[in-house]
Amino acid sequence: MTTALYPGSFDPATMGHLDIATRAAAIFDKIVVGVYDAPAKNVLFTTEERVALFAEALHGTPNVEVKSFSGLTVDFARSVNAQVIVRGLRAISDFELEMQMALLNRKMVPSLEVMCFMTSLEYSFLSSSIVKEIVSLGGSIDGMVSDNIAKALKEKYRKLKESASIPRYLNS
Amino acid sequence: MTTALYPGSFDPATMGHLDIATRAAAIFDKIVVGVYDAPAKNVLFTTEERVALFAEALHGTPNVEVKSFSGLTVDFARSVNAQVIVRGLRAISDFELEMQMALLNRKMVPSLEVMCFMTSLEYSFLSSSIVKEIVSLGGSIDGMVSDNIAKALKEKYRKLKESASIPRYLNS
Amino acid sequence: MTTALYPGSFDPATMGHLDIATRAAAIFDKIVVGVYDAPAKNVLFTTEERVALFAEALHGTPNVEVKSFSGLTVDFARSVNAQVIVRGLRAISDFELEMQMALLNRKMVPSLEVMCFMTSLEYSFLSSSIVKEIVSLGGSIDGMVSDNIAKALKEKYRKLKESASIPRYLNS
Amino acid sequence: MTTALYPGSFDPATMGHLDIATRAAAIFDKIVVGVYDAPAKNVLFTTEERVALFAEALHGTPNVEVKSFSGLTVDFARSVNAQVIVRGLRAISDFELEMQMALLNRKMVPSLEVMCFMTSLEYSFLSSSIVKEIVSLGGSIDGMVSDNIAKALKEKYRKLKESASIPRYLNS
Amino acid sequence: MTTALYPGSFDPATMGHLDIATRAAAIFDKIVVGVYDAPAKNVLFTTEERVALFAEALHGTPNVEVKSFSGLTVDFARSVNAQVIVRGLRAISDFELEMQMALLNRKMVPSLEVMCFMTSLEYSFLSSSIVKEIVSLGGSIDGMVSDNIAKALKEKYRKLKESASIPRYLNS
Amino acid sequence: MTTALYPGSFDPATMGHLDIATRAAAIFDKIVVGVYDAPAKNVLFTTEERVALFAEALHGTPNVEVKSFSGLTVDFARSVNAQVIVRGLRAISDFELEMQMALLNRKMVPSLEVMCFMTSLEYSFLSSSIVKEIVSLGGSIDGMVSDNIAKALKEKYRKLKESASIPRYLNS
Repeated sequence: MTTALYPGSFDPATMGHLDIATRAAAIFDKIVVGVYDAPAKNVLFTTEERVALFAEALHGTPNVEVKSFSGLTVDFARSVNAQVIVRGLRAISDFELEMQMALLNRKMVPSLEVMCFMTSLEYSFLSSSIVKEIVSLGGSIDGMVSDNIAKALKEKYRKLKESASIPRYLNS
Repeated sequence: MTTALYPGSFDPATMGHLDIATRAAAIFDKIVVGVYDAPAKNVLFTTEERVALFAEALHGTPNVEVKSFSGLTVDFARSVNAQVIVRGLRAISDFELEMQMALLNRKMVPSLEVMCFMTSLEYSFLSSSIVKEIVSLGGSIDGMVSDNIAKALKEKYRKLKESASIPRYLNS
Repeated sequence: MTTALYPGSFDPATMGHLDIATRAAAIFDKIVVGVYDAPAKNVLFTTEERVALFAEALHGTPNVEVKSFSGLTVDFARSVNAQVIVRGLRAISDFELEMQMALLNRKMVPSLEVMCFMTSLEYSFLSSSIVKEIVSLGGSIDGMVSDNIAKALKEKYRKLKESASIPRYLNS
Repeated sequence: MTTALYPGSFDPATMGHLDIATRAAAIFDKIVVGVYDAPAKNVLFTTEERVALFAEALHGTPNVEVKSFSGLTVDFARSVNAQVIVRGLRAISDFELEMQMALLNRKMVPSLEVMCFMTSLEYSFLSSSIVKEIVSLGGSIDGMVSDNIAKALKEKYRKLKESASIPRYLNS
Repeated sequence: MTTALYPGSFDPATMGHLDIATRAAAIFDKIVVGVYDAPAKNVLFTTEERVALFAEALHGTPNVEVKSFSGLTVDFARSVNAQVIVRGLRAISDFELEMQMALLNRKMVPSLEVMCFMTSLEYSFLSSSIVKEIVSLGGSIDGMVSDNIAKALKEKYRKLKESASIPRYLNS
Repeated sequence: MTTALYPGSFDPATMGHLDIATRAAAIFDKIVVGVYDAPAKNVLFTTEERVALFAEALHGTPNVEVKSFSGLTVDFARSVNAQVIVRGLRAISDFELEMQMALLNRKMVPSLEVMCFMTSLEYSFLSSSIVKEIVSLGGSIDGMVSDNIAKALKEKYRKLKESASIPRYLNS
């Protein structure tokens, strides 16, 4: 049985992340989505919220489990008996960082394989940061996140309205 | 009549930004330079200063107007009746981010075109960040910004002297 | 009045080329599609065929004219009074070559502007070479070229059946 | 049961190709190495030789089968019941072409997944072309190909001695 | 006599940095390692610690001197009579930033040459940030830094245990 | 004494090549320009012509010698006692190929260092191929090659007038 770990911050998961998780679930026997337990000040949603939102969005995919983790990704992979780490590569901008991470992880645990899916074209410009920025500026995120996550994002920003930490890229 | 929006932070405008605005003004009927109204803590110059400095530097280009905006770039484009968003591509380092932004903007407003000018070679290593860093370290910025902006930068840093937030790239 | 030149080999034009020509026609007053008169041994379709196929595919776009040319692109641009050269940038693989060409052309004729459109996502993996290879291997090119060009390609390959010069990238 | 196709020209297979095939065999139930049946004039080894050399080099990996194919890669994938196409990504130079191929293949057969392994660092500068060039120039290819392939290469070049078609990159 | 400056933050020096410094020392008559005097809040080790750690790690390389500096790199280069600035390029991710810095430095001081070494393959995924992150997460950094620096890192993190500023890339 | 080898095809040398050779001559004690002895059918100028043209263009740089070579670059480097191979990196398009070549050469001869100069901005779009194409199409190459080489190019093309092998990039 092959278990694959799909690690990330998922703050929140986008349709691109859901696409990768679903496609990986069609290939491997079991997928563990690992939500990195980042300090609250660096993320919009708490670790528990990010786990719950991704799990809810994946509803209907039986062989996927969503869990939080802290520490090194390779250590978490071992603890869930994953032989493979799965990552998505977008047509733009991901390759070098993913290559660096893959080489580093393989140096730390040579038997742990890193495999990349090519992100579907229609999600190639998507990222959690961009989705958050669009919501914060009052734009539409239809088709960029699942319905439950769109709802959670809008509620979160309604509460944060005073927050002004807008990422730079969209208007730079 | 074709109106083009040239959006950015312009903190402050460099000779590369002036070059793009001037060249765009030779092609399109009207150019609106859109200065993004970023929170003061993230920029060196206030929104008003950035608008005034760019406008002054453009002195003599009749069909260019400089305005500030907040919210999504595509919404501002619509409000000024721009059919085109103009961006500059430097020989190094801009392509992927610009492609991502262009694809996102076209998804949000398909009728809004994004067009890129290739930045002139002599400005291909220039950025607002680099100019600010050089000034902060006492270096010469001759030929990197217009005279009014060079003067404004030196005054600003004289007042900020105690500031120590030096970007990493020049000395990394 | 702004005239833009859209130069290329167009052997044959793909939906990506049609997309750029049509979008450019919505921005500029007049578009001249310039079909480079390459030696017959290097192309599948003759210069006349390439002009006719692109023109037929553009049927319905009044301000676009398709012409062949030889010599330097900048000289042809001058001869049709184009102020702008238009090029498409795909999310993958075009940037560096286009930047090099743009810088070179601007060095030869500084007043001639080069502007790039971002190719639509759904065409970002398309090229004339790939379309020819798929047809030669018996695959479907639905949605990759216009109907008249699909028909011409199939006829051409029926005649060439013995040709075996298959580009390397699809099966490499 | 998951079957993965690893397609290529393999003219001849390098240690990098062997590495990918072996690692894929540890993850998937069955691997079919598909050797593209390219015209003899474009390759150094015949299709039969390339199949035999790769198969011999893989000696000891029970769930890998080496076969030749012609036509589209996606059609061959279907004929061997592969759900996955496997490719290797080197730290340098492969990403864009692989992304283009992956997007194209997924458009033609959406249910066919393309997954990439990151090539091991020690093979990241290796390619079939480079190995052939080094042998043709009398250099050592120790550690770049398996022993049987090193032997076959030396014999082939002894026969071809008069051949002078030396790829440009090593000495450019 | 040719003196080369090797500038950086070196917070702390990795085996990749040591590799470049040692190789440069084999080519040039004298190497000055310039440790940038960054504000304490932006670095893990103080300027004095970074100088001492690199110098100790270089023990045995007679023509290398480690010094701290503030201000522009080009001004420091002049003050130590360096004709050359040396930089390392990793197979992944460094090129564009280094090119920008090189062009900028040459514009400021045309007579000052910038030369790049290709980082050895086995260090191509290494950076000071990654090393700090691995230590902070309890992972092994064997072979990534010299012994004295490994020891200093562990001691530093033992004291900082409560620190939670974990870079994003390893677990993103 | 440090001797550096600057290898290439130089068919013919451009101002970019001259720039690198001259700058290298200011850093190292001796420069050997190595002109690769490619088969006549692949080059415009014979090996002897390429050596003579580069040597003439370098007139006045005492510590540079121009020689032809065949076989592996690393073997030629050894035969002229070079400790360093010098290469130029243009802002666009050279990095990956140069990195691959450097890693390969260092694997073959670990003690042989490969160092890169950043090509001056004004030559960043130049290549031998582009210069030949412009001449063949009747364009001006002022400032792209030295006077003796411009003269040789024009004479060569006057004789070849019937030649139609025009590289694809300028008009693609």
